[in-house]
Amino acid sequence: MNFSQRITSMQQSPIRKLVPYAEAAKKNGKKVYHLNIGQPDIKTPVEFFDAVKNFNENVLAYSLSQGMPELINSFRKYYEKYGIHFDQDEILITNGGSEALIFSLIAVCDYQDEVLIPEPFYTNYNGFSNMAGVKVVPITTKAENGFHLPEKTELEKLITTRTKAILLSNPGNPTGTIYTKDEIYMLRDIAKEYNLFIIADEVYREFVYDGLEFTSFAHLDDIKDRVIITDSISKRYSACGARIGCIASKNKDLMKQILKLCQGRLCVPTIEQVGAANLINVKDEYFEETNREYSKRRDVVYEALKNMDGVVCEKPHGAFYVIAKLPVKNAEDFVVWMLTDFDVNNDTVMMAPAEGFYGTEGLGKDEVRISYCLNVEDLKNAMKILDEALKVYPDRK
Amino acid sequence: MNFSQRITSMQQSPIRKLVPYAEAAKKNGKKVYHLNIGQPDIKTPVEFFDAVKNFNENVLAYSLSQGMPELINSFRKYYEKYGIHFDQDEILITNGGSEALIFSLIAVCDYQDEVLIPEPFYTNYNGFSNMAGVKVVPITTKAENGFHLPEKTELEKLITTRTKAILLSNPGNPTGTIYTKDEIYMLRDIAKEYNLFIIADEVYREFVYDGLEFTSFAHLDDIKDRVIITDSISKRYSACGARIGCIASKNKDLMKQILKLCQGRLCVPTIEQVGAANLINVKDEYFEETNREYSKRRDVVYEALKNMDGVVCEKPHGAFYVIAKLPVKNAEDFVVWMLTDFDVNNDTVMMAPAEGFYGTEGLGKDEVRISYCLNVEDLKNAMKILDEALKVYPDRK
Repeated sequence: MNFSQRITSMQQSPIRKLVPYAEAAKKNGKKVYHLNIGQPDIKTPVEFFDAVKNFNENVLAYSLSQGMPELINSFRKYYEKYGIHFDQDEILITNGGSEALIFSLIAVCDYQDEVLIPEPFYTNYNGFSNMAGVKVVPITTKAENGFHLPEKTELEKLITTRTKAILLSNPGNPTGTIYTKDEIYMLRDIAKEYNLFIIADEVYREFVYDGLEFTSFAHLDDIKDRVIITDSISKRYSACGARIGCIASKNKDLMKQILKLCQGRLCVPTIEQVGAANLINVKDEYFEETNREYSKRRDVVYEALKNMDGVVCEKPHGAFYVIAKLPVKNAEDFVVWMLTDFDVNNDTVMMAPAEGFYGTEGLGKDEVRISYCLNVEDLKNAMKILDEALKVYPDRK
Repeated sequence: MNFSQRITSMQQSPIRKLVPYAEAAKKNGKKVYHLNIGQPDIKTPVEFFDAVKNFNENVLAYSLSQGMPELINSFRKYYEKYGIHFDQDEILITNGGSEALIFSLIAVCDYQDEVLIPEPFYTNYNGFSNMAGVKVVPITTKAENGFHLPEKTELEKLITTRTKAILLSNPGNPTGTIYTKDEIYMLRDIAKEYNLFIIADEVYREFVYDGLEFTSFAHLDDIKDRVIITDSISKRYSACGARIGCIASKNKDLMKQILKLCQGRLCVPTIEQVGAANLINVKDEYFEETNREYSKRRDVVYEALKNMDGVVCEKPHGAFYVIAKLPVKNAEDFVVWMLTDFDVNNDTVMMAPAEGFYGTEGLGKDEVRISYCLNVEDLKNAMKILDEALKVYPDRK
């Protein structure tokens, strides 16, 4: 039996494909520090669980396809804190940020249309594009200058008649980059000049450090009909398992179109929506504490990497990832080797090889993505282990 | 701003698009019997809510992309009751039956490949196919012979080099048809001869009446590598809002491919999975009672329709829908008219125009889908109202 070309050509998740090696390591008695995955260890606010426990219906019925009004309102109130106003019909609740991205791509692109995405990018952008039959055109950015965007003219060279949108995450996953106001304005100008949508994945909005200013694309009034915000409660409230996200856009006609996709899959799970709606009652201190904690973790990881011989990495200012260029020939081989052949007192580290985060063949082969979702003590140990490993790895550059 | 061709050409849900008329009717003080939507009024088993209330983690984390092992096991045990054995890696948990269908289509079809679907069909098959860029080739079936399949030779005429699968629901939504063993075997033969997959949507497996035998495609050992079962707890346990479904197939290579799609969207909501896993502890009496209740409801609706002047409808034997051909020029106009211009003591009825359940242009214009999810008393009233309405409707055929 033959399967479709699009599914067989789809890459395995670079974040998850090496998990069997980690499992084998654990079976052999090793402790593995998981720096490969963005699963925060921060507690989910009790407000979520309280609302779930108080759910008291007899019939677990379909909710509205656009999402429960209470949850839409909860998102609206949240955006107001950032000075962003969305009407009730300008937000659609989705199955996590993932569905928000897939629906956005389907809504603006036909088969084989093109989307510009700065690389390295969140690896599942590849999968979503593949599912939607959309061609990813990478905008290459480099570790050496903190993964900031190239000049406007460089970007313009990539635009064709099939280009329909620019998709990017800000703060960036996997780079931790916060785009500057100038970069945001440059993308705005390009969107206007070339009649493009901007799909802005802003799920890490709260994770901006060093007092940097974060500019949401939703702040740009003159392109409000071109901006699609995709969002999620997963990281903001450490509620990855809820799979609650949304699409927000001031382009009401677009939202009416996307509502048809929402109706197709009927609704988003009711109980998780009930929990998520109550998150609006979480105090601001929760975010402040979380931000401080991640900022500390970032420091631990960055300071350690900076002092490792041959490692290249600019200080990331957002999200909870960093891409590091390692002095090894092949980062995936190195990651596997750390799981199969290396330990310090029976402890080792798992990272995500960065190659799968690039759209351009051959890039990222000597890079890894490190997620700093663990506590400071664990991160310190993990960095020591990585340092030791690099010193003795036989296949260095 | 232009949207994609595929989204603008997507039809609005025929089940939901007339809701504004129903809302207006309610605002004007009318009571509306909702026969348009398959939302059961049966209580969701307490086992679901108990498990949810006992969920006691601090961090609502991602679960495994393939689904929680406990939930996969719960589905496995459930299938064993039907004499169907699936290994742990032959089941993937999905966001309802909807995602199971989308993933199946993406896995076996490339862009513009074709899928045969008996019409009238569950209207969202159109939406899923549209999203997946797959062409629906309808196999026309008719009210007059209970929507059973045409001869093999008729079916074969529809097959081209682009045909990759036959998709069908059994028991049928919106027809209530239970395919006979002969029909199942005919489809098996076609699948073998023409190298096709069978995507069998069996979410109404428990809703078979009149002592009829239900044959699952999973029982056909000689085409086990061609069969993809899509399933859901929505109807079986009256848990539509949980959005828990699965894909099950003995084709392990196919499941490995589909797992990549599961990894792309990370996971299905954790708490709803916890609730769903506990449904394996629901006693068999729950299904027996539910089945008896729906069988009674079916009788109420069918007996009433049979006695209405000019209405054509064969007795449905499964699911909880019936397609009725009405003596009106245009069923959608009639449905709207019932909401805007008709009532009996301030009560009226909403149905789903059946045109949207057909792939062939022009079919179903005088048909409606009636869902018998309401209790017997309400259904009796609703049928009386429909009868009265048909008598006085000005635009009869």
